[in-house]
Amino acid sequence: MRMVDVLEKKRDGLELTKEEIEFVIEGYTNGEVPDYQMSAFLMAVYFQDMTTEERVNLTKAMVESGDQVDLSEIDGVKVDKHSTGGVGDTTTLILAPLVAAVGVPVPKMSGRGLGHTGGTVDKLESIAGFQVEIEPETFIELTNKNKVAVVGQSGNLTPADKKIYSLRDVTATVNAIPLIASSIMSKKIASGADAIVLDVKTGSGAFMKTLEDSKELAHAMVQIGNGAGRETIGVISDMNQPLGFAVGNALEVKEAIDTLRGEGPVDLHELCLELGSRMVYLGKKADSIEQAKEMLEEAINSGKAIETFKTMITAQGGDASIVDAPEKLPKSSYTFEVEAKEDGFVSEIIANEIGIAASLLGAGRLTKESEIDLAVGLVLNKKIGDEVKKGESLVTIHSNREDVKDVIDKIYGSYSVSKEKIEKKPLIYDVIYE
Amino acid sequence: MRMVDVLEKKRDGLELTKEEIEFVIEGYTNGEVPDYQMSAFLMAVYFQDMTTEERVNLTKAMVESGDQVDLSEIDGVKVDKHSTGGVGDTTTLILAPLVAAVGVPVPKMSGRGLGHTGGTVDKLESIAGFQVEIEPETFIELTNKNKVAVVGQSGNLTPADKKIYSLRDVTATVNAIPLIASSIMSKKIASGADAIVLDVKTGSGAFMKTLEDSKELAHAMVQIGNGAGRETIGVISDMNQPLGFAVGNALEVKEAIDTLRGEGPVDLHELCLELGSRMVYLGKKADSIEQAKEMLEEAINSGKAIETFKTMITAQGGDASIVDAPEKLPKSSYTFEVEAKEDGFVSEIIANEIGIAASLLGAGRLTKESEIDLAVGLVLNKKIGDEVKKGESLVTIHSNREDVKDVIDKIYGSYSVSKEKIEKKPLIYDVIYE
Repeated sequence: MRMVDVLEKKRDGLELTKEEIEFVIEGYTNGEVPDYQMSAFLMAVYFQDMTTEERVNLTKAMVESGDQVDLSEIDGVKVDKHSTGGVGDTTTLILAPLVAAVGVPVPKMSGRGLGHTGGTVDKLESIAGFQVEIEPETFIELTNKNKVAVVGQSGNLTPADKKIYSLRDVTATVNAIPLIASSIMSKKIASGADAIVLDVKTGSGAFMKTLEDSKELAHAMVQIGNGAGRETIGVISDMNQPLGFAVGNALEVKEAIDTLRGEGPVDLHELCLELGSRMVYLGKKADSIEQAKEMLEEAINSGKAIETFKTMITAQGGDASIVDAPEKLPKSSYTFEVEAKEDGFVSEIIANEIGIAASLLGAGRLTKESEIDLAVGLVLNKKIGDEVKKGESLVTIHSNREDVKDVIDKIYGSYSVSKEKIEKKPLIYDVIYE
Repeated sequence: MRMVDVLEKKRDGLELTKEEIEFVIEGYTNGEVPDYQMSAFLMAVYFQDMTTEERVNLTKAMVESGDQVDLSEIDGVKVDKHSTGGVGDTTTLILAPLVAAVGVPVPKMSGRGLGHTGGTVDKLESIAGFQVEIEPETFIELTNKNKVAVVGQSGNLTPADKKIYSLRDVTATVNAIPLIASSIMSKKIASGADAIVLDVKTGSGAFMKTLEDSKELAHAMVQIGNGAGRETIGVISDMNQPLGFAVGNALEVKEAIDTLRGEGPVDLHELCLELGSRMVYLGKKADSIEQAKEMLEEAINSGKAIETFKTMITAQGGDASIVDAPEKLPKSSYTFEVEAKEDGFVSEIIANEIGIAASLLGAGRLTKESEIDLAVGLVLNKKIGDEVKKGESLVTIHSNREDVKDVIDKIYGSYSVSKEKIEKKPLIYDVIYE
C-alpha cells in the first residue's frame, strides 16, 4: 500500500477501508508516513469528511496505536464521562462520588489540562495530602472497595492522537468533526470504559458555538462509541455563560461540596443529575433515567453522596475534614467586588471572557510548565436573567495580587445588563443516542 | 505573519494577498515553512482553487525564488514555446530553426525529460558533435548571429517549483490547475522569454484527457503569462494519437528534417504552422497570423528553413551533413513490421501505449540516470482514419534487440481497426488569448 494512493482516494471523496486507515495511523505513529503526507491527509479529510464506518475505524486505529487501560478486574459496568470543555465546569468532581454513591464504579482518569482553570486533578490537589499518582493495582482495588478513585493520566495512551493533534494545530485542520470526534473518543476508549456519557457544550463559551455544530459533534462521537462497542449517550448542554458560580480550583471544590450536599447552584445541580442519571442507567443500576435521577437525589439528600466524597478523599491520602470545614482550602489574600453600574437584568455573560479573567488571576495554566494558583478565581453573584441593582456585586474576585484592574475590565466587558427582563436559556438542548 | 493563519485563510476559500503568497513561497524555499505546512497548503489549494491574481502572484514568487535568465542582450522580441507533452512531439526541433528563418530570435533552453522519448536536447545529440552545454555569452552571441541556439538548462531556476513539485508528487496534489499552471509558467518566465506560445495537448495521450480540462489549463496559463507581463497565446491541439509518424530520438530528427523541407507528415506540418505563426506574430515580424503562416511556408519552400537548421547545427559543433544524408544518424540493428490482422480503417491509436512501446525499446528515460538509445523507436505507417489491408504494416519497429514480442503486443493493444470509415479528428481545437 502507498500513502499517496490512500491520499488520492480520500481527496476524491471515496470511502477508505479499515486496512487503509490502519495503514495511515500505524504508519504515522511509527514514522513510516511522514508529517507532510499526514497533513495533506488531514486537509483532505477536512474537505471530504469521513463516513461513520471510517470514523469508527480511525478511532479504533488510534486506540490500538498505544497502551490500553485494563479495567476488567473492576466489578460492574464502568461508565466514563467526558465534557468538551467550558468555563466553571465542576461536574466531574461532583459526578465521580455521586454516581459511585449509587453503586456504579467510577475509575476516573483525569488530566491537568491547559484551560482557564486547572483540570480535575489540579482541583483535587487543593485538598491537602490528596494523591493522584497511584499505582494501577491500587486504583483498581480502591474502585472495587469504594466504587470511586481518581488517578492522573499515565501510560502511553493513543500516541497517534497526540502526534496528529500537534500536527492539526499547525496545519489549520483542528476544526474537522471526524478528527475532533476520533481524538476525544480514542482517549475515552483507550482509558478502558465500558460505556460513556458525553457532555457536549454549546454556546459562546464552548468549542462549538452553534447548536447545529454541537449536535453534529455529538452524533459523531456517539456513533463512534456505539460503533466501537461502547454504549454512548451525548447530552448537549448550555455554555453561553459559565456553569455554576465558581471559576477557579479551590473555589470549584467548595462548589462541588455544596452541590453534593444539595446546596449548590441550580444549573450545576441539574446538569449533574442529567449526566449522572445517564451514567447510572448505562451502568445498569437503574431501569430508566427517571429512576436513576431519583436514586441520585436520594444519595444527595441522605448524605450518601458527600460521604462517598469523604471516603474517596481519605482513601487517596487527603484531608477529608475540608468537606465540613471548607475554609481550610487554599484561600486568596484579597477579595474584590465588581459592582453593577446600573439597574436592570443580566442579559449576557461571555463565558470565554470570564475564563480569561480567571486565568489572568493565575487560575489556569498557559503552558505545560506553568504553575497554577489554586486559591484564586471568580464567583459569579449574578447570572443571565437575574435582576441587578446598581452597586450590587456582579462578581467576587479572589486574588493574590492587589491590583486587579485588568480582571475587572474583563468582567465588565463580559457582562451586559439590559432594561428588559430576560428569558433564561435552557440548560439542556438535546440528548443524542445515535 | 504565521503560516497557520495563511493556511486557514486559503482553507476557508478567501483570496490571499501578494504578501501572503510571497511569505509562503519564500518561506518554503528557505526552509522556514516546513513540508507539512506546505502540503496542507497545497491540498487546500486543490480544494479551494486560486483566483487569477493569486495565480499570477504565486508564479511571480516562484520566479523570484531563484535565478532568472537575462536575454536582454539579444535583439528583438524573444518568443518561447512550451508543449504540455505528448507522444512523438517533434515540434520544438522544427520550430526553432523555422521561426528563426523569418527573423524571430529563438534562444531555446531545453531539457532532457523523463518521457517516452528523450527531450529536445537528447534528440539533438543524435547529431554527431552537437554541443548543448554552451556558455551564456556564446548562447547570446549565437542567437544574435543566427537567430537560433539551443542550450541545456542550467542555473538555479525556480527552486521553489522544484521543491513544490517533489512534494506534490507524494501528496496527491499534482492535478490542481493553479499548481500545474504556475509550475509551467514560472519556468518559462524565469527562462527570460518576452512572449510565450503554449501548445496545450488534449486527448488520451495528453496529461489533460478532456477538452474542457485542457481549455481550463490553457486559460490559466495564458492569464498568468499576460498577468506577469509576458504576452501569451495557448493553442489546444490533438493528442488522441501520436503526432507525426516517428516516435524515437534519431527518428524524430529525421522527421524534423523532412518537415523543414516541406516533406513531413501533414499533422506535424500543420501544427508547426499554427504554433510558429503565433510565435512570429508575437515576435512582431508579422501583422497577422495569416501573414505569418505565409512567411513560414515561404521559408520552407525556399529552403531557408532547412538552411537555418544546418547553420544552427554547424554553429554548435554538429555535423550538418546529416541533413542531406540522414542515414548518418544513429541506426538500429533491426527493423520489424507490425502487420494489420484484418481489413478496415484505423479507428483508434492509444498514444500513451505507443509511447510505452517506444520506451520499452529504450527510447526514453525511466530514471534521471538512465541511458537513452537514440537509434530505436517506432514509425507509424497508419494513423486514425487511414484505410488498411490485412498484412499491410501498421508500424515499423526500430530495435536493437531481436525479440520484440512485448513491443508488438503493446502496439496491437493500442491499435483498433473498424469496418466503417472513420472521420479524422481535428488537429486544432481552440486558440486561447485570455
